[in-house]
Parts: sequence; C-alpha cells; structure tokens
Amino acid sequence: MEIIRNNFKSNLHKVYQAIEEADFFAIDGEFSGISDGPSVSALTNGFDTPEERYQKLKKHSMDFLLFQFGLCTFKYDYTDSKYIMKSFNFYVFPKPFNRSSPDVKFVCQSSSIDFLASQGFDFNKVFCKGIPYLNQEEERQLREQYDEKRSQANGAGALAYVSPNTSKCPVTIPEDQKKFIDQVVEKIEDLLQSEENKTLDLEPCTGFQRKLIYQTLSWKYPRGVHIETLETEKKERYVVISKVNEEERKRREQQKHAKEQEELNDAVGFSRVIHAIANSGKLVVGHNMLLDVMHTIHQFYCPLPADLKEFKEMTTCVFPRLLDTKLMASTQPFKDIINNTSLAELEKRLKETPFNPPKVESAEGFPSYDTASEQLHEAGYDAYITGLCFISMANHLGSFLSPPKLHVSSRSKLIEPFFNKLFLMRVMDIPYLNLEGPDSLNFASRACLLVQPKRDHVLHVTFPKEWKSSDLYQLFSAFGNIQISWIDDTSAFVSLSQPEQVPIAVNTSRYAESYRIQTYADYVGKKQGDKQIKRKWTDDSWKEVDRKRLNTQSLSHSLQSHYYPPDSFTATSTVKKRNLSPSPEAGSEDRVLGKSSDSDLEQADSCAEALSEGRKKSKKLKRMKKELTPAGSVRLSPAKLFEVPDTW
Amino acid sequence: MEIIRNNFKSNLHKVYQAIEEADFFAIDGEFSGISDGPSVSALTNGFDTPEERYQKLKKHSMDFLLFQFGLCTFKYDYTDSKYIMKSFNFYVFPKPFNRSSPDVKFVCQSSSIDFLASQGFDFNKVFCKGIPYLNQEEERQLREQYDEKRSQANGAGALAYVSPNTSKCPVTIPEDQKKFIDQVVEKIEDLLQSEENKTLDLEPCTGFQRKLIYQTLSWKYPRGVHIETLETEKKERYVVISKVNEEERKRREQQKHAKEQEELNDAVGFSRVIHAIANSGKLVVGHNMLLDVMHTIHQFYCPLPADLKEFKEMTTCVFPRLLDTKLMASTQPFKDIINNTSLAELEKRLKETPFNPPKVESAEGFPSYDTASEQLHEAGYDAYITGLCFISMANHLGSFLSPPKLHVSSRSKLIEPFFNKLFLMRVMDIPYLNLEGPDSLNFASRACLLVQPKRDHVLHVTFPKEWKSSDLYQLFSAFGNIQISWIDDTSAFVSLSQPEQVPIAVNTSRYAESYRIQTYADYVGKKQGDKQIKRKWTDDSWKEVDRKRLNTQSLSHSLQSHYYPPDSFTATSTVKKRNLSPSPEAGSEDRVLGKSSDSDLEQADSCAEALSEGRKKSKKLKRMKKELTPAGSVRLSPAKLFEVPDTW
Repeated sequence: MEIIRNNFKSNLHKVYQAIEEADFFAIDGEFSGISDGPSVSALTNGFDTPEERYQKLKKHSMDFLLFQFGLCTFKYDYTDSKYIMKSFNFYVFPKPFNRSSPDVKFVCQSSSIDFLASQGFDFNKVFCKGIPYLNQEEERQLREQYDEKRSQANGAGALAYVSPNTSKCPVTIPEDQKKFIDQVVEKIEDLLQSEENKTLDLEPCTGFQRKLIYQTLSWKYPRGVHIETLETEKKERYVVISKVNEEERKRREQQKHAKEQEELNDAVGFSRVIHAIANSGKLVVGHNMLLDVMHTIHQFYCPLPADLKEFKEMTTCVFPRLLDTKLMASTQPFKDIINNTSLAELEKRLKETPFNPPKVESAEGFPSYDTASEQLHEAGYDAYITGLCFISMANHLGSFLSPPKLHVSSRSKLIEPFFNKLFLMRVMDIPYLNLEGPDSLNFASRACLLVQPKRDHVLHVTFPKEWKSSDLYQLFSAFGNIQISWIDDTSAFVSLSQPEQVPIAVNTSRYAESYRIQTYADYVGKKQGDKQIKRKWTDDSWKEVDRKRLNTQSLSHSLQSHYYPPDSFTATSTVKKRNLSPSPEAGSEDRVLGKSSDSDLEQADSCAEALSEGRKKSKKLKRMKKELTPAGSVRLSPAKLFEVPDTW
Repeated sequence: MEIIRNNFKSNLHKVYQAIEEADFFAIDGEFSGISDGPSVSALTNGFDTPEERYQKLKKHSMDFLLFQFGLCTFKYDYTDSKYIMKSFNFYVFPKPFNRSSPDVKFVCQSSSIDFLASQGFDFNKVFCKGIPYLNQEEERQLREQYDEKRSQANGAGALAYVSPNTSKCPVTIPEDQKKFIDQVVEKIEDLLQSEENKTLDLEPCTGFQRKLIYQTLSWKYPRGVHIETLETEKKERYVVISKVNEEERKRREQQKHAKEQEELNDAVGFSRVIHAIANSGKLVVGHNMLLDVMHTIHQFYCPLPADLKEFKEMTTCVFPRLLDTKLMASTQPFKDIINNTSLAELEKRLKETPFNPPKVESAEGFPSYDTASEQLHEAGYDAYITGLCFISMANHLGSFLSPPKLHVSSRSKLIEPFFNKLFLMRVMDIPYLNLEGPDSLNFASRACLLVQPKRDHVLHVTFPKEWKSSDLYQLFSAFGNIQISWIDDTSAFVSLSQPEQVPIAVNTSRYAESYRIQTYADYVGKKQGDKQIKRKWTDDSWKEVDRKRLNTQSLSHSLQSHYYPPDSFTATSTVKKRNLSPSPEAGSEDRVLGKSSDSDLEQADSCAEALSEGRKKSKKLKRMKKELTPAGSVRLSPAKLFEVPDTW
C-alpha cells in the first residue's frame, strides 16, 4: 500500500493496526545517497574497526535523506499455517511545517540518484507528496511555540525585554503604531456597542501589528471578545474579532486547542509510525540494515550520538530486537549452503532445497507483490523480500529440532542468537556490529565477544599518489596472492596469504624511497599514540556503561515514551490483546525449548511497561535470558548449533 | 523548447544557431536551494558589503544544484520591426559519466524543493533525464584518462612503480596470473595459425587481468592483432582479439579515437551551451542575476575564486556584457515609475504607459509562451519574461532621443550605463555589485564608484538570544521609526531615522547589562582589527589587479578558449555572418550617437579574436569605450540621464 501525504492520515489507523497485530516487521529504506566521503572504498575499508566504521558512516552518510521507508508486517495464521502480510511503502519528505519550522537541508549523491532513476523511482512523489516528519527535539520546539502563542494570546508577559520606563499600560506601543492601535480599539468599541454586528474583520497587517493587537485587546478586554488570525486567499494575514460570552469563548479556545493538537500530530507525521514500531518492542528484520537503523534514528529521533557505545545504547532502547538477514545468511548453518547474500540472490536461493518457500499471503485489501517480476529497490518490496528470507531461514532452523518443526516463530529461542548483530559491509575479519556489547550475558553468544581480530598477515603501505592497484600487485608480486584495501590516495592495507612473509616484506622496504611498509600492529600503535589513548573494549568499561545508563535513564525515557499523545498507538494494547487470545498452537514449539512460553508472558509484561519504562525493558530481557537455560529434546543445543562466530 | 538528455545532441545545432544569430540572450536558473546558512535573513543582511555578500553566497549557496537553465535568444527583425524569440528550457543533472568520473554531491533545501513542487516542477525530468555536464577541470581529467588509456593500450610504460628486478620481458606478470596469461597467449597463437577464424572472444576477466593482456599482447604482437574490450549483457567485460593488417588496424584506431571524442563531447554535455554563450561575447540579460551568474560559473567552469575581485575578473572574462533587469528597473529613469521590481510585477507594469509592450514572436518550430497564463519559475519562461522586460525598458530609453526611437538595440550606447552591474538583494544602501571595479574608465559611470555608503544612522546591537524583533522595537521605542537587520541570534543592525540620535542611543546602553549598543563605525573598526587588515578598494589596488590580470592571462585564456574541439560552435562564425549581411537599418539609430557603428565593427573584430584571446576582448572594449565621446542630437547626454547612482 502506497502511503503519501494526502492519504497518510486516513490510513494511519491501518498502519497502527498492522503493527499491533503483527508477529514481526521487515523494514527497508531508500536514501538520497550513500557516502559523502572521498570514495565508497575509503568509507568502507576492509580493516575498519566497528568504532571507525560507525564514525565514518555518521560523518559521511547522515546528511543524506531517507525518503522512502518500506514496512512489511507479518502475522502468522496458525489455522492455515501461513503468514498474512501487510506491506506499506511510505514516501517521506521534510516539508517545512510553517515559517518558523526547520528548513532541512539534505545531500543528494548523483550516482545514487541516477541509480534510483534507472530503477524507475518516482522523485516527484517524494518531493511533491512526501509525508512530513519531525524528530523529537523539533517536536518539542513546535510544542513550545504553540504554548508560547497561547500564553501570548492570553496576555502580556512574552517580552524578554522590560522597558525601564514601563507605563501603567502593560503593553508599550511604539510611537508610530499608536495611531494604528487607537483606530483598532475604536472599531472594537463600535463593535461592542453595535447590536447587529457580531464579528469584525480588520485589515491585513504586519505580524508585529497583530502582536500589538493581541496584547492590547487581551489587556483591555480580558473577556467578551475572541481574537483570531485568518488568512486571505492572497496569504495575507488579518485579525478577526468576535463578541462572545464566557462559555462561547471557552468553547472556541478548546476548539482551537484541539486544532493545534491535530496540527502538531500532522507535523510529527511519519515519525508516529516509527514511534509505533519502536514502542511495540517487536522483532524488526532488515537486510544489511546498519545504515537503515542509523538513518531511522537520526531522522526520526535525534542526531546520532558521538560514539559507538552510546549509539548501541540508543539503538537497543529504540529497537530492542533487531535481526539482520544478511548477517544470518552469512552465519552457520546457512553460510555453507548460501553463496551470495545479496537480497535478490538470497531470495532466489531460499526457494530451493533444503529451504522451503514460505507460505505468505497479502491481507485483504492489500496489494500483493509478485516476486517473479522483481520490483527491487522499492522500499516496500525490499522489506517484503527481506521478510520472506527471514521466514525461510527461521523455518530451516526448525529442521534441526526433534521432531522437526515446519514453522519457527519470531519468538522462538532458535533465532535469538541472531538478535542485535548487524552486518558490517566489506569488513574482512569482524563478523558484525554487536549491539549488546561484549558482555557474555547473551544467551547464545557465550564466547567472549571482544572484537580483536587477528591481523598479523596485514601490512600498512604508503606510496606516491600516482600509484594504482597494479603498482601494488607489482610490488608484492613475489608474495603470491594479496588482497588490497585502499585507505586513501596514498595508503592501503595489503594482506598477504602467509603471515610469515610479513617481516620479509617490511624488511624489503627499509631502503625504499617512494614507499613504506609497516606491520598492522605498528600502524595501529602509532595511530593510537598520535591520538588520545583509546578506551579498550573490556568488560570493565562495559560495566561502566551500565552505570552510565542509570544516569541517562531520563534521556532513554524521553526517547521512547515522552512525546506520544494519549490517543496514539501504544504497545500496551498490542501485547494485552496478544495475551488475551493466544493461538492454541502458539506455545507448542516453544515448549520444546523449555520455559519459553513463560518467558513470553514475562516479556509481554515488560513490554507493557514500555510506555513509561523503555529503558528497563531491554535489561529485563537480558536478565530473563540469563535465567533461562535451554532444555528439552533438541538434538544439539541451539546455542552451539547457531552460535554466531567471532570471526570467519 | 524542452531539452533533456535524449534530445540534447540532436538539437544542439539548433541551440548553436540560435546563439549565433541572436542580438542578445536572457537567462534564468532554478536551483535546489538558496541558502545553506542559518537563515536567509542572516545570509542577506541589509548592511552587507559586496565582499561580505559574495563570501556568504559562495559559502552558503554553491553546494546547491542549478538543475534547470532557461535560455531565450532574441533576434531583431528590422523588416517587420519585431523580435524573433527562441526559448530553450534545459534540464541539467551531473549523471556520472563512468566509474571513475566525479560523483557530484549536491544539497537540497526543503523549502525550495517544496516551493518548486508547488509550482508543478518536474523533478523526475531532472533526475532521470537531465543533461550531464563537466566543468573545465573535470573535462581535462577525462581527456587525460582517455590519453592514458590509449597509451596503455599501445604498450607498457603506464606503471609508476618499476620493479627493481625487472626481467627481460617489459611486463611483469604476478605469479598467480602467469598461468592465465600463458593460456591467453596460447589461444592467440592458435588464432594466428587458423585460417578460418578472424576473431577470438576471451572469457570475461578482471580489470587487472585485462590490463595484463593488453600489455603482454602489445609487447608480443606490436602489429597483426587488434585488441578491444567489450561488455556482455550482464555488464561483464571481456577482451576481443582480431587478426588485422596494418591498414585495418590504423582504421580501427582512428574509429576508436573518433568514438572517444564523441563520448567526451557527450560528457561535457550542457557545458558546451554555456561555452557557446560565453564565446559569443553577446549581451546576457537576467533578473536579479547574481546567483545565476555565480552558479553558472561554479558549475560549468570552475569553483568560485577566493575573493570578490577575482570573481569580478573571472565573470567579465566569461560573460563580458551582463545586464540585470532588476537593477535597471530600480534605477532612473525607471525607479520613479516602477514600484515593484519582482519579475512578475515588472512584466505587468511594463505593458502599461509610458511603456509599450514589445513585439516579440516565437520563431517557427518553437513553442510560444502565453504571458496571460503564467508559468513563472520555469526557467525558460522566466528567461523569456526577463527578455521582454529588458526590451520594454530599453525601448523606453529611446523616447528620450530626438527624434524619439521606438526600437533601441541591445548594442545601443543608451543601455551601456546598465552593463555589468548586478542587483544586490536586500542591501539597503549599496546599489549594485559593480563587476568592472571602481575604475572611472566606464563610459557612463564617471562618478567614482568607490562603495562607501553612509552608515552614520546605523547601530550595532548585541543582546540575549531570547530577544525577538519586538524586544528591539520596545528598546528603541523612544527613537521613532527603526529598521532592524538581523545578523544572528544575538546581534542585529538597527538603523534610526535620525543620525543625531545615534550617540544618545549608544549612551543609554552604557550601564545596561543584557544588551550592548555601538555605532556602525565602531563595530566595523573592531571587526577589521580582529581580522587581518582588509585591502581598500582604491584605484591603486585596481591597477594592481590589472597588473595581475596579465599574469593570470593563461588562466583566463583557458577559461574561454582552451577546451573547445575544432568542430564546436565558435564566435568567429557568428560575427562574420553578422557583418557580411548587416540589416539596412542596423546602424541608423547608432549613428545618432556618433561613431557607434564603427565601434560595432571594431568590437566584432575583437569578438572574432575571442577564441584565442578571450581576455583581451574586454580590455579592448574598455579602451574603445574610453575613446568614444557621446555626440549627436541627443536632448541630454545619456550618461547624465541614465547614470546609475552610487546610492539610493
């Protein structure tokens, strides 16, 4: 279902309902660019540490616009053993809400735009019909604007400067405006005398004059008149004065307040959808989703934090359960039977043995996608395909159970090892970005997650800027196969196939003038010496983070729960409904794994608290996971089977 | 006529012809944004000096994209006393030409995009069908790439690194590639032996392998084989080897070279249109055209220079004659009879007395615009309207002649006072940006053009960031009418109506804690003290610029003439044609003003040299102007009549 500015409001309840009833979501974003840096290869160097990668993406990718957001909700129908799918394709654009609202600037990258254009992307739909949105700070400011306007309309007190010679009159009218204001007051006296006329339209005037009118009248006539600003067809603003009794005046004020609340909701716009997804606490699936997650938080919540640790905290707070299908497909037991993990190829592969194409149908009233005629790079379609891939892979895990299960739910323990680990593009020896830090609390990843890859076969080489890959191949031709990772115009990492050759290579460069070779360890050592000493990723420092978390509770709190009007969708209702009428088969598979259905309940309770205690949720989840031990008749502990490795 | 990627090449000759035959052009650009700064009001403070304004626009506006360029060519038909107009609306987009070509990033401003969207602007046409372009540096680099590719294909010598143990073979094949290359050589030996086969398609392989093949073969078989890289349908590249005799080999090389030349022209794309306009040396008219000129130079020539003086030089070099209709309409004799100088209002006003709506017809085969159904903010239409405004105003100047003239040509002395002076938006007391500097050589502006506006009624005020305009009105309420020009959140210029009050105002702030008031002179003095001492705009320093000009001749030279392939449009042909068949009436009006028709001829000669001596042209033009003195039966010297004032 295509959602644009005009049909957003009328379809929002459908979106909320889909989120409420879903078992899990798949998402995808399309952006106006990927990398603002010198080149994509420099942006994604094969030997980036996760912190470096985060910093690069934050610096070079966040100025692009996420302008199409695909959301696919999947709900399992136990009666017919199939998924019911609802797909939404949102066009998003930061249309300025009013004159004082933020005028967002965003960057476009020609190659990305050209690529989307070649795929038939409709830019007019984005720019002419995109749904507006505000992040939380902008929402707060707009709310303040409304409050201020109201307090201004209610009387004086809005001026920061108080004149030293304040007269008896609480409003100081500048000399050149006195005549104008006197005339207005005269007209209103006439209106109040008149028996025929109920309202008076003043001539269009400047904003400053309107302000003076509001201030003068609310001081002179605290009751008895209602003041309102309207616009002519030519967009000139003018003031309308009406005679009202107290009851009528209050009714109008309430009406106005309700209208303002609606305007505010309209301005928050698409962010409300993201809030609803976040508040649901449900599993969110994406393919190679790090950039999607970063953009979503940056655009609809707040600018990204300074370092990776804080980003991880924030992400777990907004999206407590993420799963990256590219990471899943690159991990055992899938790694050996899946060659190509690009979304299109993965989808094709997962239709063949040993996988089973999942049974998925579009919900009534929702258009269905045809996977035969590919519509790749439409966010809604990509989200749909991502969901299919997840279902196929999850179900495949069921074949390892005894007895085998055809359907593995999104709440099964079997998929937990893949939670909150995001694929890192083109990183050679670090498997993923672990959103839950190097703690060993994670049920499946009991192995220490300290990311310290072996790089003893890697050389750091500097050379004149004229050099190309061929020059490097030439230079290292005696060392057999090499792999080059460009850093910039004059340096690269070169990995040799045999670590033993590293000292030989370093030695040969001793007397070279044009180039220099050093070991990876030396390079990192010098770099750290140059900068300040980096904090090590040890358990200790993560404990420190946990301590910090308590201090930032209020931030986290506001992140998840602060700004939702009472009538908007909340997770509470979802979870309650889900618990009130559980499907009869719902627990059956989970029972194989022991106390899982209890844990579902516990988790549901914890989700129910999400509205006011977003932060606690993920902690509770962790505690819960720790307390559970896998049991039952599984052939192998799923932990061992599907443990996501540290390196590959 | 709408020109997009698909029909650009087939219509380019029409564009060239229109430029060649025109008397003058009108241009207009649409951009993806206006100001990247904190706010437009801070970007265009009313008390900016021209240098400040240039720096602000350069810093905050050049990252936007000029994506629609309107060009309207006007040619006067003396037989029917009417203009024949050809309008072109170009959609422009920096589609990357190949993998190694620049991947341009540009900024979009939501409010500008939203505004254009509301006017029905077609973004899909820009992004999917925009004509590509290269600036001069990019063109040079692409040319080098081709040259390098050719020299590589012709043999070795392209490697920057020469292995210390170079073998007898000029190509060092890495160990792991030796088997691959040996197999290729074997296949070619077979091909050369075979009598049936003339060509051999190798398997797709990597770029590095293709390079090795090229190097090996051109060393092993300097004659006798032709090597070519083609692409499969799946975009995989493979090498094709053909047996050829020497003649055939040369023919194919030439064919390839011609194809490369065409590809290069395609890549330079829309820039060729701008080069043709520039090379013609003809009058270019725009409305409020400073940003248009800056963007045009920045996008199609080179990044803007560091300071205003260099920008002026560069601009006069690229566009030797510019005329800004907003500046013209704001100047006597128009100022008093034209209230609103916005383009739409100006066009309406110029249809009424004392003006005459100009007779303008679309050329055959060109669509005509209907000024009744406004299509404002389409660049082609805006350029058209701008041209109409210029014609009306120019013709109005003819009414001051004796006998009055109904038609004033774009080459008339009457309009020269308006040349090369660009309107400065929202600047209160500096009338224009004078592209020709403060020298008094200019025919009309004999008054010293040193821009030193009187600002003795202006105060500089700093205050807490909570303050709004109303707080300032309040603070200065004792001083009557004031005008506020915001600088940033915590400072503004405030101009009083009476300079005598300035010391009083400054005095009152002496003991104030929250705000501070100083005179404009004090503010500027401190600012200059803070920074380095600014060079003064004196005649001396302009002489220095002239001296510098000689040194930068080579830059200027390349700017105008270096990169045009011999078959592209040149100004020479234009001018010659114009001189070979002058219209019988062409000189009649100019004769009124004396030697003008001679000067036309002289200028034509100078234009004819434009191709190789772009720089000299404007100098010669200046000399020429100096030598001429107005004569004839003009009621008043046009210099006195229409002299553009220093302040208003």
